[in-house]
Amino acid sequence: MNKEKNNKPSKELPLGFVDRKEKELLIRDFIISKIKEVMIKYGFQYLETPSFEYSDSIGKFLPDKERPDEGVFSFKDENKWLSLRYDLTAPLARYVAKNYLEIPKPFKRYQLGTVWRNEKPGPGRFREFLQFDADYVGTKSLQADAELCVMISEILEKCGLSKSEYIIKISSRKITEELFKKLNLKDNQQKLTALRALDKIDRLGWSSVKELLGEGRKDKSGDFTKGANLTSQNIEVLERELNKKSPETQDLLEILKIFKDYNFDNFEFDPSVIRGLEYYTGVIFEVNLNFEVKNNKGQAVQFGSIGGGGRYDNLINNFGNYDAPATGISIGLDRLVYALMQKKEFKLKQSKPIVICVFDKKSMKEYIGLQSILRKAGISTEIYPGENKLKKQMEYANKIKSPAVILYGENEIKSGKPTLRELRSGKEKAIEIKELVNEIKKII
Amino acid sequence: MNKEKNNKPSKELPLGFVDRKEKELLIRDFIISKIKEVMIKYGFQYLETPSFEYSDSIGKFLPDKERPDEGVFSFKDENKWLSLRYDLTAPLARYVAKNYLEIPKPFKRYQLGTVWRNEKPGPGRFREFLQFDADYVGTKSLQADAELCVMISEILEKCGLSKSEYIIKISSRKITEELFKKLNLKDNQQKLTALRALDKIDRLGWSSVKELLGEGRKDKSGDFTKGANLTSQNIEVLERELNKKSPETQDLLEILKIFKDYNFDNFEFDPSVIRGLEYYTGVIFEVNLNFEVKNNKGQAVQFGSIGGGGRYDNLINNFGNYDAPATGISIGLDRLVYALMQKKEFKLKQSKPIVICVFDKKSMKEYIGLQSILRKAGISTEIYPGENKLKKQMEYANKIKSPAVILYGENEIKSGKPTLRELRSGKEKAIEIKELVNEIKKII
Repeated sequence: MNKEKNNKPSKELPLGFVDRKEKELLIRDFIISKIKEVMIKYGFQYLETPSFEYSDSIGKFLPDKERPDEGVFSFKDENKWLSLRYDLTAPLARYVAKNYLEIPKPFKRYQLGTVWRNEKPGPGRFREFLQFDADYVGTKSLQADAELCVMISEILEKCGLSKSEYIIKISSRKITEELFKKLNLKDNQQKLTALRALDKIDRLGWSSVKELLGEGRKDKSGDFTKGANLTSQNIEVLERELNKKSPETQDLLEILKIFKDYNFDNFEFDPSVIRGLEYYTGVIFEVNLNFEVKNNKGQAVQFGSIGGGGRYDNLINNFGNYDAPATGISIGLDRLVYALMQKKEFKLKQSKPIVICVFDKKSMKEYIGLQSILRKAGISTEIYPGENKLKKQMEYANKIKSPAVILYGENEIKSGKPTLRELRSGKEKAIEIKELVNEIKKII
Repeated sequence: MNKEKNNKPSKELPLGFVDRKEKELLIRDFIISKIKEVMIKYGFQYLETPSFEYSDSIGKFLPDKERPDEGVFSFKDENKWLSLRYDLTAPLARYVAKNYLEIPKPFKRYQLGTVWRNEKPGPGRFREFLQFDADYVGTKSLQADAELCVMISEILEKCGLSKSEYIIKISSRKITEELFKKLNLKDNQQKLTALRALDKIDRLGWSSVKELLGEGRKDKSGDFTKGANLTSQNIEVLERELNKKSPETQDLLEILKIFKDYNFDNFEFDPSVIRGLEYYTGVIFEVNLNFEVKNNKGQAVQFGSIGGGGRYDNLINNFGNYDAPATGISIGLDRLVYALMQKKEFKLKQSKPIVICVFDKKSMKEYIGLQSILRKAGISTEIYPGENKLKKQMEYANKIKSPAVILYGENEIKSGKPTLRELRSGKEKAIEIKELVNEIKKII
């Protein structure tokens, strides 16, 4: 440690990063085990790409800028920029291009992994989070898109949610594409600005979005956002079309038919779903939780989307001429865990250890003997990890929420009967060693 | 994608990073499940710290340098430097300092996580790898150090290794400390250079190490490394003492006694074990695999260490005045997986999907019906994810190593008897739907 004295390092975490504790991690493990179970059943391959990619491989290098795009953590490595992945889709596209000759076609893979966003951190806004992605590459069949929706529903239900607690919203980029054609919009920048405005319907409501489709909008802070400059007539057409209750595009009509074949009905058509701006080309979907959860300040909030996805038929072609139309889904696991922790009582197998108190280091062999019997029976057990007074040892056992301590002092060792003291009731009892496992199993 | 045309992004990975495929990931999952099982049994808490820390928190900020120490990936964030963690011990020390009032004392935690090293990549030298760490904080009891050795042995045996396939080497920093005192070495830089030389016994052998302890050594490439400038008499004392076959320091004598109480004998005393230079203050240990594995070039190599650890009683005090003596172990999971993949046949539950071939999109409902029956029975199944000709579909099924395909064309649908074709034997048979699950279970 190269530190000057009196210049202590920070004990704090950088903004946007958090420590995660046991309960959350065990629930996350449970969810991940359910995901893997479903992934195997649906025939997806397990893949893991690294955290770093060349910045240009994941579309984050602007030739006219000195540094890669903001929003990613980037690092100059000899002559090329590396970036931490900001999602799992861009690395998949790179993987497919790199291994195109070897992979099965179509290619179905899933991945679990951390992604990073170098954004301004705020309350509840993290700069790293865990994602789960499943994708089909190399097929235009809408059967694939439909299965992703059915599959994520199965995962959520295996995690304990009922049909009323979540819904899949579906739409298609073909809707806006056809609308823009109808309105005779040709300028790409204008179309992007319009899409960006429409993406905010959920958050801002139609009246603000209409300002953003028109000349622009001043927000509460007084900042002005330039609009897409559509005519009010065109804005009206957009509003009317995007409030339609049933889909008309070919792809959505087909996917609805497939949903029916699956007896899958926990979805709703919602043309206001846009799913960011990036690479979608057809069907898009969003996974929403319908129940209230409390935010960090204890306020009840409508939780909303935990992820989504859709069809991106052109992304992989950035690497060259590959026949690789694709569709995929991304779920934000930290958000899902956060919501489920509030909604559900998880019966986690994790039991806290029985603590064997230390009276005399000379009796360590006897303590180890008991510990070994309990552990062999699958009971979480530890000898008190120190050499403190009994009072400290009891404080420790209470602190870690141990169900019981074992007192095995000189007299108990002589009689061959350790004392088991339950910590909640305070009851204690001398027990024959051969009965110890059974007695403990009654209380854990 | 902000790319100019004809300026395709790279399909390659930066050096030192790799894609990991299903077989490796499933074996890793298996090992991780065994680790978690043992961790619960031993009473360790599950914790996860973030990938990033303030650079100074993890001891990687030199006040006299413009950038944090080399060897880490660092990013400037407004005014402070952030670094990706290079191990899991430094973040633990920060966590303990930050949460000192809340945590149980002693504190036992385990963590699984990626660590990053910004080192020059070479063959088999990665820049990110997965580590498993378990630590005791707040106890000087050597019971803790002993349990770490017993515990890692239990994990390795649960992963299928026999006693002859691994060994725990133990030593203590007290040995070199006492030796340096005996030799009257006082200069810290000289002691560090000597330790650094001794750390290379395994790799270079004693004759080269003696050069490094003396004036210095010229390696094969002609590069000269300055030595510790010890007298040849002192070097002889070091060599003699570090070749002793049984330990004499108090801590090692005590841990040997505890090993005996545990009936644990799969260790050997090896005073040449140094374990890097960082923060160790007492007992140190190293986990070694004894069998040969093939490297990436197919050459048989002695695999050696997959990790180790030891006592670091002063590290946490860098953050202030905490009563936090500690001991811990780190295991490199990627290396362990690599070795185990070559050594053991893992019977992985993962079975490849049965493929239901698509003859006519109009029969999708019938395919979905079959798929649903099989999946409900826990059989990995997929409808061919595309719309290609039967030949392509069979190629796909073979490519993904599917055990069998189901042919369910117009006639089969009429008769209610899908055809099951085994792909290895080529045998096929018409089967009643209600018998399908049983027939498939015979062949997977």
